Amino acid sequence: MQTGRSTVRVRDVEFGGDEVVLIAGPCSVESETQLLTVARAVRDAGARMLRGGAFKPRTSPDSFRGLGEEGLKLLALARAETGLPVVTEVMDPRLIPLVSQYADMLQVGSRNMQNFPLLEELGRSRVPVLLKRGMGSTIDELLSAAEYLFRGGNDQVVFCERGIRTFEPSTRSTLDLNAVPMLRRRSLLPVIVDPSHGTGHAWMVPSLASAAVAVRADGLIIEVHANPALALSDGAQSVTPAEFDALAREVAAVATAIGRHTAVPCGAR
Amino acid sequence: MQTGRSTVRVRDVEFGGDEVVLIAGPCSVESETQLLTVARAVRDAGARMLRGGAFKPRTSPDSFRGLGEEGLKLLALARAETGLPVVTEVMDPRLIPLVSQYADMLQVGSRNMQNFPLLEELGRSRVPVLLKRGMGSTIDELLSAAEYLFRGGNDQVVFCERGIRTFEPSTRSTLDLNAVPMLRRRSLLPVIVDPSHGTGHAWMVPSLASAAVAVRADGLIIEVHANPALALSDGAQSVTPAEFDALAREVAAVATAIGRHTAVPCGAR
Amino acid sequence: MQTGRSTVRVRDVEFGGDEVVLIAGPCSVESETQLLTVARAVRDAGARMLRGGAFKPRTSPDSFRGLGEEGLKLLALARAETGLPVVTEVMDPRLIPLVSQYADMLQVGSRNMQNFPLLEELGRSRVPVLLKRGMGSTIDELLSAAEYLFRGGNDQVVFCERGIRTFEPSTRSTLDLNAVPMLRRRSLLPVIVDPSHGTGHAWMVPSLASAAVAVRADGLIIEVHANPALALSDGAQSVTPAEFDALAREVAAVATAIGRHTAVPCGAR
Amino acid sequence: MQTGRSTVRVRDVEFGGDEVVLIAGPCSVESETQLLTVARAVRDAGARMLRGGAFKPRTSPDSFRGLGEEGLKLLALARAETGLPVVTEVMDPRLIPLVSQYADMLQVGSRNMQNFPLLEELGRSRVPVLLKRGMGSTIDELLSAAEYLFRGGNDQVVFCERGIRTFEPSTRSTLDLNAVPMLRRRSLLPVIVDPSHGTGHAWMVPSLASAAVAVRADGLIIEVHANPALALSDGAQSVTPAEFDALAREVAAVATAIGRHTAVPCGAR
Repeated sequence: MQTGRSTVRVRDVEFGGDEVVLIAGPCSVESETQLLTVARAVRDAGARMLRGGAFKPRTSPDSFRGLGEEGLKLLALARAETGLPVVTEVMDPRLIPLVSQYADMLQVGSRNMQNFPLLEELGRSRVPVLLKRGMGSTIDELLSAAEYLFRGGNDQVVFCERGIRTFEPSTRSTLDLNAVPMLRRRSLLPVIVDPSHGTGHAWMVPSLASAAVAVRADGLIIEVHANPALALSDGAQSVTPAEFDALAREVAAVATAIGRHTAVPCGAR
Repeated sequence: MQTGRSTVRVRDVEFGGDEVVLIAGPCSVESETQLLTVARAVRDAGARMLRGGAFKPRTSPDSFRGLGEEGLKLLALARAETGLPVVTEVMDPRLIPLVSQYADMLQVGSRNMQNFPLLEELGRSRVPVLLKRGMGSTIDELLSAAEYLFRGGNDQVVFCERGIRTFEPSTRSTLDLNAVPMLRRRSLLPVIVDPSHGTGHAWMVPSLASAAVAVRADGLIIEVHANPALALSDGAQSVTPAEFDALAREVAAVATAIGRHTAVPCGAR
Repeated sequence: MQTGRSTVRVRDVEFGGDEVVLIAGPCSVESETQLLTVARAVRDAGARMLRGGAFKPRTSPDSFRGLGEEGLKLLALARAETGLPVVTEVMDPRLIPLVSQYADMLQVGSRNMQNFPLLEELGRSRVPVLLKRGMGSTIDELLSAAEYLFRGGNDQVVFCERGIRTFEPSTRSTLDLNAVPMLRRRSLLPVIVDPSHGTGHAWMVPSLASAAVAVRADGLIIEVHANPALALSDGAQSVTPAEFDALAREVAAVATAIGRHTAVPCGAR
Repeated sequence: MQTGRSTVRVRDVEFGGDEVVLIAGPCSVESETQLLTVARAVRDAGARMLRGGAFKPRTSPDSFRGLGEEGLKLLALARAETGLPVVTEVMDPRLIPLVSQYADMLQVGSRNMQNFPLLEELGRSRVPVLLKRGMGSTIDELLSAAEYLFRGGNDQVVFCERGIRTFEPSTRSTLDLNAVPMLRRRSLLPVIVDPSHGTGHAWMVPSLASAAVAVRADGLIIEVHANPALALSDGAQSVTPAEFDALAREVAAVATAIGRHTAVPCGAR
């Protein structure tokens, strides 16, 4: 039991309790078929929430930048089909009302961790926020960014460690698992981990997912695509539904080893 | 002569030519007296533009966050008094029309280098943009961020190197002067340097300013405060008007040594 | 079973098989009582090898730099008492014969990962080597450093991830657990993790130890001191014998969850 | 004038006075012709000392690792021919007597900044030492490394900033020119800069050399090769003799601009 810690509810999902919450789904929403295929698969494997990008922040404007509102509608459809609550990113303070119509939780992406007008607007909303650490940001700065949300009255905040910028070139980021116990010591809010961005390599995601659970992450967010080679974004770091299923099984066993659990208890399948 | 390079004009000031442009002023606009005192002093010392923050991005919401529109009005007043064009930061895409009424150049701060809705909105405006490198961003990503501005039709862009995040703790950032020749090789746009944020120590600013000119920066942006100890933000890295005057003299001599010049030619005072 | 992987034997201990090997002991050997107390405690808790510094690399020459040969003798005494093989650091190529008389495995510390004369001399010896990653070194460079050992004929090499230098100031290093699967993909040699140096905080060591096992580390090296507040070096990151015992129990459970085991099987105590 | 600062003499060359000392030469000594050609050219362009590697630290043991003592003999020959004192690296404490027979100054390379047995042995010698900052080392640690030399009685130490490890991939290292004023504030010893390793690109070396002089470096160390494309090491960052000549001219002008000078006064050629 996580005595004295805060919990954040997103519909029937609770972050910060004994359950380690699995969030999974594609990097970008690409089509109804693509999304529903993945959504059903990850639900069956034990995911409790669905992720998917409709408005995508991309380093270059030439990259695929998402389906926009059409993507949001598909996410709502997938929720209706699977029962999984939806988390998706919002980058523009002007789009918060629109995105909130469809999503159950709003993600502040790594590049926007210190986008203060966005944080202030989200602080005034009452939607739960998934606040990702900036890739060049300290733990202190992540905690201060949350203050902008609290200031507006929104304390439904889940932190997400997703890797930082370092000199190591063989991985996309350096996943900083030290950040999990440090954030949990300095804040009562839940902390989840994104091993997809934190490694950049699909084959590394499962073992880092297990490590994240072992270090006491309150959840995981994992990119899953039925055919990673054809993904419009982040294919190299997306696992297949079958790989996600195996990941979820191991993660369940690790959770049990440390006195926690995932949605589908280890051994129940 | 900088053959074949692009120039960016802000009123009568030209970036990217043989002149090394000095921008100076307080971190934050605090009051009419504070601003006018500094504006007159830096103009007399050779500055060609005035900087000053009205909407301040601060790591913590408890810090002083600027005077808002009142600060913009004071900047316009200082421009009327001194003739110096004004650059100030805009963080919120919704405020671009307001800030553009007062400022001659809009700054995209380090934390917002990848705030794509902001960049797209600025791309649709026709105001010159000072695009600062993110403290955790690569040179490639800075160049890609500018693409968002070009896409909307705005090619009046000046890059600014302001220091990056590294393991070295004795300085606020590590000023990456390698970035100046690299940016100038990969783009024709002007590049300026901010040694105030790049060092975090007022006593280091003058020598890094000279280094920036020697490495071929097209300009400098320097924080100046009449009484740094009382500054509401960034006092530790602000130089006094007298220190700025000495800095400008040395910078003029260094510019001459490499075949360039500043507004007030070396020896003319 | 770790099919096809290389194993490294140190007396009766095997690295690289299904067993996750626990190495524990004080940062520095300080006295017979201090060492024996810890050695017995960690053996009883499931450690398979004893660590302890006799020649200590210290950033400042004013810090405690170890007991030298007297420390080596105490390590040999502790081995005789507990049956635990001993690993200790050697920094000076001229001291390899001396240190080899007492130790079962020689550690190349983080600062000496690219001390090529030392590596070449160790390559000519036949003592197993624990090769720690430099705090500013890439994974590629660590693999290349091992080539220096192989060149001389010594392939008894165990890699150790111990944290790298990043901009994050709240922890002594950033433990790079991504390095574990990456090293295991690019080399067949065993990889262990040092969460003591990788975090710098005793209270973080247990959860990062569990994470290291979950990510498939072949072992752990943990600093333990009976009275950390009085330790002559690294007190802040040393756990007590009681904390090590709890750590070993959880680590055993996590190992079981991923199909591996530690010396004392989970539940056997 | 540099009031109160310490100076370090290497034969007739003085570091730490008003003169900015140029050291130049090939990365590795490859042959008599190669070395003498470069040595004469850099002397004529204003270099005061000759650099050249005989024992080369290389990341991989498969790379060219230098001519050893044969290389030292060629350096001594080049000194006899040109009158330039010689600096070369020593990595192995056992080789200090040998290398000292030929060299006028011993370089501790970046990878060995915390090789304490090497530093202690050099501390007991009376040869001037060029102590390069480790690529993953803080300024504090560089200062502490010098303490090991002082402890043995050797205070003839010149610091060298040569770039640090950061996330920026477009340059080999990030040259940290902030380190120059910081080292000069915290120590009275001379500080030189190595823009060759600090950038990794020959075309960037001249402008960073000028920047280093502007920031108050007491000298420069530059890799020069008559035919960089054929160099056995570091060709990509080596300038040609003609490029070095142009570099020396500009550096002389920048030195004059800040009240210092190089060996051949600006305009004297």
